[in-house]
Amino acid sequence: MSHSLSEYLHENRDRFEKELGEFLAIPSVSTESRHSKDVEHCAEWVGEHLRRAGVGTVEIVKTDGKPIVVAEHIVNPDLPTLLVYGHYDVQPVDPVELWESPPFEATVRDGCVFARGSNDDKGQVHMHIKALEARLKTGVGMPVNVKLVIEGEEEIGSVHLEAFLRENAQRLACDAVVISDTGMLGPDIPSIGIGLRGLAYLEVFVDGPSGDLHSGSYGGAVVNPALALAEILTALKDESGRVTIPGFYDRVRPITDEEREALNALPFDEDEFRAETGAVSLGGEAGYSTLERLWYRPALDVNGMISGFTGEGAKTVLPAHARAKVSMRLVPDQDPNEIAELFSRYIRDLAPDGVRVTVKALHGGWPWAANPESPLFDAAAAALKRAFGREPVYVREGGSIPIVPLFEEIFEGPVLLLGFAPPGGNAHAPNEWMSLSDYHRGIETIARLYDEVVHRGV
Amino acid sequence: MSHSLSEYLHENRDRFEKELGEFLAIPSVSTESRHSKDVEHCAEWVGEHLRRAGVGTVEIVKTDGKPIVVAEHIVNPDLPTLLVYGHYDVQPVDPVELWESPPFEATVRDGCVFARGSNDDKGQVHMHIKALEARLKTGVGMPVNVKLVIEGEEEIGSVHLEAFLRENAQRLACDAVVISDTGMLGPDIPSIGIGLRGLAYLEVFVDGPSGDLHSGSYGGAVVNPALALAEILTALKDESGRVTIPGFYDRVRPITDEEREALNALPFDEDEFRAETGAVSLGGEAGYSTLERLWYRPALDVNGMISGFTGEGAKTVLPAHARAKVSMRLVPDQDPNEIAELFSRYIRDLAPDGVRVTVKALHGGWPWAANPESPLFDAAAAALKRAFGREPVYVREGGSIPIVPLFEEIFEGPVLLLGFAPPGGNAHAPNEWMSLSDYHRGIETIARLYDEVVHRGV
Repeated sequence: MSHSLSEYLHENRDRFEKELGEFLAIPSVSTESRHSKDVEHCAEWVGEHLRRAGVGTVEIVKTDGKPIVVAEHIVNPDLPTLLVYGHYDVQPVDPVELWESPPFEATVRDGCVFARGSNDDKGQVHMHIKALEARLKTGVGMPVNVKLVIEGEEEIGSVHLEAFLRENAQRLACDAVVISDTGMLGPDIPSIGIGLRGLAYLEVFVDGPSGDLHSGSYGGAVVNPALALAEILTALKDESGRVTIPGFYDRVRPITDEEREALNALPFDEDEFRAETGAVSLGGEAGYSTLERLWYRPALDVNGMISGFTGEGAKTVLPAHARAKVSMRLVPDQDPNEIAELFSRYIRDLAPDGVRVTVKALHGGWPWAANPESPLFDAAAAALKRAFGREPVYVREGGSIPIVPLFEEIFEGPVLLLGFAPPGGNAHAPNEWMSLSDYHRGIETIARLYDEVVHRGV
Repeated sequence: MSHSLSEYLHENRDRFEKELGEFLAIPSVSTESRHSKDVEHCAEWVGEHLRRAGVGTVEIVKTDGKPIVVAEHIVNPDLPTLLVYGHYDVQPVDPVELWESPPFEATVRDGCVFARGSNDDKGQVHMHIKALEARLKTGVGMPVNVKLVIEGEEEIGSVHLEAFLRENAQRLACDAVVISDTGMLGPDIPSIGIGLRGLAYLEVFVDGPSGDLHSGSYGGAVVNPALALAEILTALKDESGRVTIPGFYDRVRPITDEEREALNALPFDEDEFRAETGAVSLGGEAGYSTLERLWYRPALDVNGMISGFTGEGAKTVLPAHARAKVSMRLVPDQDPNEIAELFSRYIRDLAPDGVRVTVKALHGGWPWAANPESPLFDAAAAALKRAFGREPVYVREGGSIPIVPLFEEIFEGPVLLLGFAPPGGNAHAPNEWMSLSDYHRGIETIARLYDEVVHRGV
């Protein structure tokens, strides 16, 4: 990396952090309709800052949902083209009372910035903007073409992205896709993502009496919807922690000896991981290690449930309704649509007499595993090694980025997951944070990646 | 009943209903601290209206909780003395959006008044006030002494009543206790209560990770508190609907052949009861009829539960906490303290690894069965027959009035449950209502009861 580039990155650290703070201050919660103006404003902010960075063309594309920011910086059509994907929308902040500083007020403590979106994904989107700026403002220039697609619906299932990508496949044509929306295995351990779990997210509704009843006058003779829901949820797993939905594991790839060896070689500290969660102990499907459970095995979780009276005191009601949000993390080659269907059918089978049970699919996404043979992975490894001073590790991610397999299919090129989120970074939880040192090393990595891609190819 | 009394009741119907509306308009929700002023105001209202009725002495007694209205009308110490108990506090109104008219605005539809407290228990307390007024204002006078204790904490477990009764046992000394806080078996079927279920109400807390986690990054390797809670709740009953808590049924009295015969003779329409609940079908402990389940068998219900994300959309969290309110309705001779202890111990046994489980007892009350041999029951039957034109039936109540057995013990006399709440009256639920015709017949019954007690004794 040229001297002027290093200098620019160094001299502009404070300004970069200040601008990141501005970006994080916009409450771009895509799932909450009351924030729809904020989401739109956030798209404008991203577009404006790409323009200021010197990116050739920038457009805010309207969709039937949230706008998509599309930008292009074409140096020479004969050079390799990278398509960068990210999202500027964020998760809701509740329970807001558990935040130690306001979720939309970037607050630095111990070298880390705390705010909703700091690592998922605004902080990482910002690294790409700043890497481009550094190359363009210093006159070092770009050795590759870059296109960017920064969407505002990732946290609600990227509803309009697929149609947009397919309709604009020509315009967005590229040699490889770069996505920075994943995490690092540990502090100071640069990581390249080679797998993601998929998702099937549904809601189960149990309806009993037409209204809440007096639990004294009716208790014992009317089926309790909360208990019926509890029974249904309990029946979804057996005693060994395996999901009991018929056919659930049919398409799950067994873990190979090679994969198991690679996992065992990783610097993963299970005690530290447990401590990070705050749980008294870890647990899951019998016969698998923690990393196997997270990366190679599907999982089923209740994300939320509610029934009856949950306020202060003791109200003696027999609730009319109960509902639970249930999501399953999927691994290759599970099909999210098939799993949603198997789940719904099984729930209907489990429904006890005396209540009506319905299921609604909320969203889904495919699991994905990379082919790390591509030279793009060498390029990324080289860039990371230079910025972090050590070899990267190859990791999977328990979470889902449903559009990753989509990009691979549409653009017929490799997808690189170049993620900088810290482990225990509280994405989707209160007190989300990002290490500022990783933020700056991320910018440097991206600024170097362009050169490495030219040297090594994609 | 004297002509002038009948006339008075007839001529003042509209005014009585108007005053009832005023009483129901006071949001005396004892469990919600924001309503504490309203609760105090409600006690004042009751005191003022007893005074206006002509009752000899009326006092609003302060406690460490809500005030108790105490009144006495002593005609002659040699005459029998009845102690009337009722409560002016009410249940919360949520979910408030399900009310067809505002809960604290008495609204008459089809001859019924809809409002929180219309039958539980303000409507019935008001009958006693109006019966006294009718006797005193017409100059017909009282053939018995009457004392009244109208409390404001029934819906939160009558926290301060027991101490008050014990400390004032001398002042409140009586020959029998009359309580109108129960219901009628069916429309136009006057009913005398001979049994109540007791209550043990607890809350179960399940704590997993120290904060909500990303369900992708952690799902499958961290025990899910919502699922752990579902498992615990499910384990509380077996497939036949029996409660599995060890020792739970040890003290339950078997149903006698006589009791079963009496139950079968009652004009109880199971289809109508089911339709009233709105449930697709009824259900409960195998081997028992609906009335047996409600009156002679204990029951276990979840009154409410909550965990994780319950808002709009799909938030992918692994919740930190889950909790459920669980109540058990008890029958003679179950001991609520013993049951709470057995429950807590069993829950701790059921707690899976990976989460912390705690239990908090919220409140409890003893079950009760009357001795219908007392002449007081004949007096009540005669009064009901005259007011309603038909013989009353003897019923139990699935609900609890924890202080009934307490009154029996402290005052060493019989307790009469003379209740006028309609079946399906939505006590504790949205759209609580009271039949106005039963309201007026209730006043007449009480006004007649005084004479019948003199003729038949207690």
